[in-house]
Amino acid sequence: MDTPGCAKVAHLNNAGAALPPLPVIRALTEHLELEAAIGGYEAADRNAAATEDFYGAVSDLIGANPDEIAYVENATRAWDMAFYAIPFARGDRILTTTSEYSSNAIAYRQVAEHRGVRVDVVPDDADGTLSLDALDAELAKGDVRLVSLNHIPTHNGLINPAAAVGRLCREHGVLYLLDACQSVGQLPVDVGEIGCDILSATGRKYLRGPRGTGFLFVRRGILRTLEPPFLDLHSATWKAPDAYEIRGDARRFETWERYVAGQIALGVAARYTAEMGIEAIQERVTGLAGLLRERLAAHPGASVLDRGKRPSGIVTFTVDGHDPAAVKKAARERGVNVNTTSPRAQGYDPRALPSAVRASVHYYNTEEEIDLLMTALPR
Amino acid sequence: MDTPGCAKVAHLNNAGAALPPLPVIRALTEHLELEAAIGGYEAADRNAAATEDFYGAVSDLIGANPDEIAYVENATRAWDMAFYAIPFARGDRILTTTSEYSSNAIAYRQVAEHRGVRVDVVPDDADGTLSLDALDAELAKGDVRLVSLNHIPTHNGLINPAAAVGRLCREHGVLYLLDACQSVGQLPVDVGEIGCDILSATGRKYLRGPRGTGFLFVRRGILRTLEPPFLDLHSATWKAPDAYEIRGDARRFETWERYVAGQIALGVAARYTAEMGIEAIQERVTGLAGLLRERLAAHPGASVLDRGKRPSGIVTFTVDGHDPAAVKKAARERGVNVNTTSPRAQGYDPRALPSAVRASVHYYNTEEEIDLLMTALPR
Repeated sequence: MDTPGCAKVAHLNNAGAALPPLPVIRALTEHLELEAAIGGYEAADRNAAATEDFYGAVSDLIGANPDEIAYVENATRAWDMAFYAIPFARGDRILTTTSEYSSNAIAYRQVAEHRGVRVDVVPDDADGTLSLDALDAELAKGDVRLVSLNHIPTHNGLINPAAAVGRLCREHGVLYLLDACQSVGQLPVDVGEIGCDILSATGRKYLRGPRGTGFLFVRRGILRTLEPPFLDLHSATWKAPDAYEIRGDARRFETWERYVAGQIALGVAARYTAEMGIEAIQERVTGLAGLLRERLAAHPGASVLDRGKRPSGIVTFTVDGHDPAAVKKAARERGVNVNTTSPRAQGYDPRALPSAVRASVHYYNTEEEIDLLMTALPR
Repeated sequence: MDTPGCAKVAHLNNAGAALPPLPVIRALTEHLELEAAIGGYEAADRNAAATEDFYGAVSDLIGANPDEIAYVENATRAWDMAFYAIPFARGDRILTTTSEYSSNAIAYRQVAEHRGVRVDVVPDDADGTLSLDALDAELAKGDVRLVSLNHIPTHNGLINPAAAVGRLCREHGVLYLLDACQSVGQLPVDVGEIGCDILSATGRKYLRGPRGTGFLFVRRGILRTLEPPFLDLHSATWKAPDAYEIRGDARRFETWERYVAGQIALGVAARYTAEMGIEAIQERVTGLAGLLRERLAAHPGASVLDRGKRPSGIVTFTVDGHDPAAVKKAARERGVNVNTTSPRAQGYDPRALPSAVRASVHYYNTEEEIDLLMTALPR
């Protein structure tokens, strides 16, 4: 068995942070041991090829070029480095969805206040998925500088129609930023097929990499139009006495100092995912999540809150009369990891949902683990 | 022996990244093992007290309050989060020193271009230390929004008179940002005695913490005047439908997702440093660096490039007719780690130095290791 954690817990919190497989654990600890043995810079020199391979591993996985990839310390900062680099002008509009993550919504609001940008939330279809007709209509109104959404929201069980959004953005010639925090590693994500210009993702979730790692994709054609909000000696070159030159590839969004062991391990995680086969992973995740939703539908008092046309591996539900935090605690005491969602994280969701339980499955989970969760739920 | 790496190498690259002691290595690997065993979020819950203790450990070490400390992924980003938050206005001046790090110089230049700020480099005394009289005179001219410098430059062997600068900044009522990347863990750094408003530092250098960790200090009184350049769900709270509130403590400069194991280990490193005694550490570092400078002075063809009134643990030198990169390589082959400095990192240094060899000592180094370096140098 490749995942030591599976012997300890039924881990249904993969949308939080997944359990890493042995090759990822080994890559991480071996580099940290080398740092302690011979020094941090010296270890980086010795493992320079593995560190560099991160760019190839990630670009292979998402259909990008290595020079379009930046290593960033988490998905939030990856997203930030690109989003805050966009040269918004007063009157520009940002289009997003009702299921946007609040963290991104806060950033939109900050930019709206400082740069006079307007944020418009595109309405949903009746099933809760972003309405493509409504998006098309909003794009047609003009002044749209950016379409920005997440691929898989954290709290409502659906998958956004990322490629269809991409086609509309291309038609209207509008920049497209996709937050792929929950989708990379869960289903096929190909930046060419999706047609996004910018994509951010994390290491710790469906990719099964370390905490404190993430990456950013920026399409070659727009790289030079995005001046990074922060610059250092790695992203730019100092030309004394008083000038600098920003590098031309996606590493302009990086900083020199980094969690090197995490970078190596994230590259290993990306290659591991590719070897497992992303189509097979998606099929297994969809199957297990479907099974869990069925079980919950048959459970007295349980309500599945998920919406949309295409379900993800993230299942949210409540149990009548039971606080989600208490449900989470009781499950953990039985060796089952789930999480809760908070209203504060639900962006522009018109349902104004209360807190809920979130169980998120990965391909290494089993039917027995889902049964274990069901027995841990109150009736 | 508390430092396993000392058995493997003579590590004179502490200004790059120091060798961690056992308690730091253990804190790091034990948390990573727990993450792999029970899940990343679940491990964070279980080690919440150790994670929180980071703030107390760091604030104790530098004479701050815990709510004035932010955990940031490296010193560059810590510095960035504060520097780019300063509300500069057109015509404002930034005062810095000739020995400023180029990474910071690039950031000054970027802000100068975008916000119409002017960067003025304060001249040195004859010995190469920042002239306090010249600084006083520049401050008296007015329009100074910020005095920003590093405590110990990376490439010229001196220690800047940080507390004397602080007194002048107070007198003139000017904001004071100190880059303490090379000083925290090397000598006593007390934010009250220094009188700085903002201080950034890294984990991996003299604190002997992990790579990919750093921290930021921001004085309570100015926290609310600095709006972070990036916001997320941790630094701000989402108030649907379209508003947010930024938190009041220094964690407004943090992001939610982080390298948790690194945070715990950096807290352990800070407490470890305090237990060793920072005055004793400084005495030992100064003694060993002085010994190395003496040996170099007696070595045929070697030239020590260090300047200033007060020497640091960072020793830079050249050996006539030998490329510094080749000297570094030859030393490493004999088990001695040193680094090189690059002209591109030397900010506004009027000497326009070529590349040089940099040997940086820590208290765990020995006279024998210095002798070993000397035998590894070409004659």
